[in-house]
Parts: sequence; structure tokens; C-alpha cells
Amino acid sequence: QNDLLSATGTTVFTVMSALAVQHGAINLGQGFPDYEGPEPVIRAAAEALLDNRNQYPPLTGVPELRAAVSEANRRFYGLEIDPVSEVVVTSGATEAITACLMAVLNPGDECVLIEPLYDTYLPVVRMLGAIPRLVRLTPPKWELPRAELAAAFGSKTKAILLNSPMNPAGKVFTAAELAFIADLVQRHGAYAVCDEVYEHLTFDGWAHIPLMTLPGMRERCMRIGSAGKTFSLTGWKVGYITADKSLAPNIAKAHQLLTFTTPPNLQRAVAVGLGMETSYFAGLSASLQAKRDRLAAGLSALGFGVLPTQGSYFITADFRPLGYTGDDVDFCRHITEAAKVTAIPVSAFYGPGEGAPSHFARFAFCKADAVLDEALARLAAWK
Amino acid sequence: QNDLLSATGTTVFTVMSALAVQHGAINLGQGFPDYEGPEPVIRAAAEALLDNRNQYPPLTGVPELRAAVSEANRRFYGLEIDPVSEVVVTSGATEAITACLMAVLNPGDECVLIEPLYDTYLPVVRMLGAIPRLVRLTPPKWELPRAELAAAFGSKTKAILLNSPMNPAGKVFTAAELAFIADLVQRHGAYAVCDEVYEHLTFDGWAHIPLMTLPGMRERCMRIGSAGKTFSLTGWKVGYITADKSLAPNIAKAHQLLTFTTPPNLQRAVAVGLGMETSYFAGLSASLQAKRDRLAAGLSALGFGVLPTQGSYFITADFRPLGYTGDDVDFCRHITEAAKVTAIPVSAFYGPGEGAPSHFARFAFCKADAVLDEALARLAAWK
Ligand SMILES: CSCCC(=O)C(=O)O
Ligand SMILES: CSCCC(=O)C(=O)O
Repeated sequence: QNDLLSATGTTVFTVMSALAVQHGAINLGQGFPDYEGPEPVIRAAAEALLDNRNQYPPLTGVPELRAAVSEANRRFYGLEIDPVSEVVVTSGATEAITACLMAVLNPGDECVLIEPLYDTYLPVVRMLGAIPRLVRLTPPKWELPRAELAAAFGSKTKAILLNSPMNPAGKVFTAAELAFIADLVQRHGAYAVCDEVYEHLTFDGWAHIPLMTLPGMRERCMRIGSAGKTFSLTGWKVGYITADKSLAPNIAKAHQLLTFTTPPNLQRAVAVGLGMETSYFAGLSASLQAKRDRLAAGLSALGFGVLPTQGSYFITADFRPLGYTGDDVDFCRHITEAAKVTAIPVSAFYGPGEGAPSHFARFAFCKADAVLDEALARLAAWK
Repeated sequence: QNDLLSATGTTVFTVMSALAVQHGAINLGQGFPDYEGPEPVIRAAAEALLDNRNQYPPLTGVPELRAAVSEANRRFYGLEIDPVSEVVVTSGATEAITACLMAVLNPGDECVLIEPLYDTYLPVVRMLGAIPRLVRLTPPKWELPRAELAAAFGSKTKAILLNSPMNPAGKVFTAAELAFIADLVQRHGAYAVCDEVYEHLTFDGWAHIPLMTLPGMRERCMRIGSAGKTFSLTGWKVGYITADKSLAPNIAKAHQLLTFTTPPNLQRAVAVGLGMETSYFAGLSASLQAKRDRLAAGLSALGFGVLPTQGSYFITADFRPLGYTGDDVDFCRHITEAAKVTAIPVSAFYGPGEGAPSHFARFAFCKADAVLDEALARLAAWK
């Protein structure tokens, strides 16, 4: 069997979700809302099943969704994207990330990754025979160490994979950081795979800036969005890639090898969603910001060292102030069993190198207020 | 960009479907029905959207569908499959094939492939750094050249990818051929990826025999089924892999890197489909057998040399008896433009080696009878 996969554990999200079920714990681990997405979008998906369009849609997506993605790029970021030749719809953002990496990396190429990172990045880069170059953000502010990032780029660098807003750190990269990255990418003739699934989940007026909008980056970026995150429908697995026409053909060919197409009824419903009024998108981030505040305040009151979250579904929190002396894996198991609340150890978002922080737990706040309150009450009772 | 993808053309299915649209041709190219799947299955998918299960389902599939796949294995083939540890649901059979190959192949491993072959097999094997060993069936009967197949197996063989019923050849492998393959697989300690998406589309009493049912093959096979093909809903992209518990974990990890999960409402609807009465499955193959007969008779009457089809959506036909002297690529373009009927050149199902047949066109018969009749009338008028 494949050595790389055999050596990889089951994803932490599945492990912790199973543990949560086993212990009857409130699951603040895996990042999915416990509420449903907008009713008009769900209704559109149900209706779209009934009008004879259940066969293979075009490889790169149904025209309605490609047009909607193009229009959303214009509306939110002023990007002019051709819906025919510059959009590729995928079966979720996970597929999109894998397809974009496949599209550009050759065996032996180097790919810069920023830790903490989502747990599919590293195995996919390795599976493609490429070489990961890891750079770590510095907690508690998750600062980008610029000299280290610059040193990670070299003559073999083919791509950087950038996740902003970032899971699990909740960091939104600043304009200055993005400019620094854009400069490195251009000076090395590299590409950027931009995992922007949390693009519409930013708080406190932090604006998400796609790297693609920076000067000189239009042709170098593959920008990934997610209907699951944007419409609170994580099971639908509809993603979309915006990429220059020089890149989109290889992405489409990778998509052909990975899934070929994506269910047309869900695509059509997501097109309806992307066309919703600005109030929907503003309401989404306002609602999540309130949930972030609720959970952050509660965790702080319990004594956690709560790190800032500018976007995403997640708070990371230092549990050492509570007097817990084990590592984060122990802590997350312990609170699942003892407090009946599940979180994810942040060390799961690091590669094999030494010295990853092991004192942070990640809590998802994309849950009903009553669930967040109950989780906090359980943690208070346990403490 | 990735050299392998850059060197690969756009898939023939997309190219020919686009050409069909451009010329107003009847599209007997890409294999999708022009009728819809069973109403109860579509209704189940619509209803399943409305009861709050639109977030991530379990990585390996919703319990209902894993149970239904297990039960279908028992019902149709007498296979005892554990629904918890031996079923992995994927976003279509394309993903399933890629995931199974990823699960077992290491760079440098050899993988035996049988030509003619579906157009994702070869690039996926290469993308994984494995080495394809190609063996050609012999037309017009698409016989398996046993000595050549045996010679393709060696000390580096890790897997064979077997497609039965076979696209585009319409061949159903016989019990004797399967026994020969099973023996080779076992003697080389290899695995078999079994693309059985047309398992329920066999004709004239030809029974599909999963390689997995042969003695000694239970632990060596990854058996792939397709809701798209079994329920005439090719756009849904729901596939399912049956594999021994020693193999399923690596397949699940590959699935995690490729898509992570598959839409829960579609999974639940497919579970309803797999539970339908035997009359559904018998009716499906009877209906397609009648369509095969209709198209085969018509093409024969026009002078085509029609090859036998025991299963799948496809007829392959020799066009030389019509006096056409160009190759199959020319022929398929020509009839698209001149007759307004589109077919797929069978040479598109061959790797780069010399000597592939170039005198066969593949016609899909999974179309309304009136459409088949009109296609035949157009070909008659053109001829
Ligand atoms: C796709 S599974 C996990 C969801 C997620 O993005 C997370 O929890 O980090
Ligand atoms: C997934 S696209 C093509 C459908 C098919 O299996 C075929 O036409 O061969």
C-alpha cells in the first residue's frame, strides 16, 4: 500500500468528532455550523433536482454558477474574471486545493506552506512528489516572520499555499503582509494557491484582501472559495476556483482526474446564493462575530488565554493559565471526557518538525448560542 | 505548471460534446442518458435537503448508504461486507478510481492497465509516479491476450486496474478470464482496482462477476460502483468503494485529500435507490438491451461492422465497410459536421503506443428511442 498514506493518521477532525459522539460531548472541534444555510438556497437545490438536469454538467461547472462566481469577484473585489475560461467549479474546496497544487507542481518542485496549516496540505504536496518548505507564524499574534518566509523561497519554489482568513489561527493577512508575499512570488516566478474559504467570515471591519488583487498577481493566483463556508452548508461540497485563463486549463484537467464534475442541482443553488443581497453576507459575518465574542468572553472568564480571531470559524486558546500541564492532545481528550466539550489540538496543524506549540486548543464558534453557552457552562463545572 | 497535465489534451468527452453543440448534432458521444433516473430516488434527494443534515457527513459516507452498499453486495454477489469498516463513499467513480490507486501505489510501482481504457486511468497512474504496463485486448471480439497479460505482471507489479463491464468495448469479462487475472494478482501479491460502474448494465444474460468474489480475492480487490450509472443520474457524482478492512483505511485517507466527503442528501437518496426491488435493476438492463439492439440493428443496416456489446452504454463499430478511409478522429468529426451525429473515436481510449486501432467509433445508446432513430436517419441521409 501507499507508504505516505499508511504513515498518516486518520484526520484529527474525524478522530475528535468520533470521540465527541462517544462521550456525548458538545463538539466544538470540526468546523461546521449546527444551523442550516439560507432557505432560498436550500429550496433552489431541491427544485433544481426536478427539472431534468441531473446528468453530467460541463467539466468546469454549470454556466449559472460560473457566471455567479465571476460576478462575485467583481462585486466583492473588483476582479474582472471571464466566466467561461477563468472559473472552475469543484466538489468542495478540498478538491480545489488538490487540483490547484496538481495543476502547477512537478515532482521535485518546492511549495511554501505556512504553519499552522490545514491537515490535507502537507500530504497532498508530498503525494505529488513536491517538497514542502514550512514557515511558522509566531503566536500569540500569529505574526508572519518575514525573513524566514523570504528564506523559504528559492530557485526551486513553484508555489506558495496561502490560507487567509486562516484556519486554525483566525488570522486575516494584512495588506502589508500580502504585499510582501506577492513580491516574493513574483521575484521567484511562482504561483499562489489561495485558500480563501473563509473570505466572507471576517470580523471587526477586517477586510479580506485576495492576494489576486495585488499588482502583478492576477496571473499567478488560484483563488479558492467555498459554498460550504459561505452558505453554512458544509456538506454540499461545492468549491470554486478563480484563475487566469493561462492556469485554468490545467486546473480543469486536474479536476477531470479527481471528480470530473460536481452535482448540477447544488451548483445551481450556490449560484442563487452568490447572487443574494449584500445584507446576507454582512449578516453572516455579524452573526459569527457575535458568536466569536460570546465564546471568547466565556473562555476568557474561565481563565483561558484567548488569542485574537479576525476571521474563520475558530478561536485558539492557551489552556496553561488554567493550570493544565499536559499537552494539547491530552487536553482536548481530557475535556472531551471530563467536561464533555470537544476541541481540536492545534499541534495537529503542524508538520513533523520540532517545537510546534502544544498549549493551544481550537474551539469552533459556528454553533447555536445556546450550545456555546452550554459548552461554557460545562467547562466551568469541570474547572 | 505541471508537465504531465500540460501535455494532456482536454478530455475527448468535453471536446466532442462541445463539437456536438456547435453543429447541432445528436450527441451519442459522452456516456450519459438523456432521460432521468427513478422518481423515488430524485424525490428522496429533494426531501433529504430539508431535514437539517446539510453539514459534513462522516468521511466514509452516511450510515444509510454504507449499509445499503453492504446489503447490495450481499444481494447481488453474496459478498459479506462490513458497512462500518469496508465501505467508502466518494464523489463519483472517477474519485473512487483515483483514491484506490492512491491508496496502494507508491512511486516506481507498476500498474497493469488494459486497453482500450477510460481516459483518466493513465494520467492518474503517472501522476502518482507509478509506471503503467499496458496490455491490449484484441478486436473485434476484444479477447484478452493471456500471455501478454502474464508478461505484463512482474516483481514490481502493485496493482491491476480492471474495468468490467468495459468502456468503450462493451465487454464483460468471463469467469475464465477473471480466474486467470485473479491468479496473476495473487501470485504477484498485487491488488486489483475494479471499476465496475456498469455492473447493472449487462445484456443477453451475461452476468457481471466481481473479481472480488473469486477465491483469494476478497482482500485484494477494491470494487467501485456508481450511482450515476446504476440510477441514470450521472451528474450526481456518488460512487462507492467496497474493500477489505485492511485496505479501506488508506482509501479513506486518500478520499480525505481528494474531496473529504460527498453531499449527504444525494448519499441518502442513493441508499433509497440501492434498496429498490429487483424489478428496477432488471428493468434497467432490459431497457438498455433494447436500446443496444435498436442502435446495433440500425448501424448494421447502414453497413457498419458492429462489434458485440455485452454490457455498458456503448457500441463500438467499424466504419471502414462504409468506404470511409480516414481515421476515427476524422470520422467522428466528419459525421458530427456532415451527418449531425456525434460519436467518440476509440483511439482516444489508447495510450501513446503504436498500432492502436483507428477504425472504430463508439456510439452511446443510453438515449431515448426517438433520438436513436433520428440519429440513424441522419446517418442514412448522410451516407
Ligand atoms: C473538512 S473537515 C474539517 C472542517 C474544517 O475545515 C476544520 O474543522 O478545520
Ligand atoms: C465522466 S465523462 C464520460 C462519461 C463516460 O464514462 C464516457 O462517456 O465514457
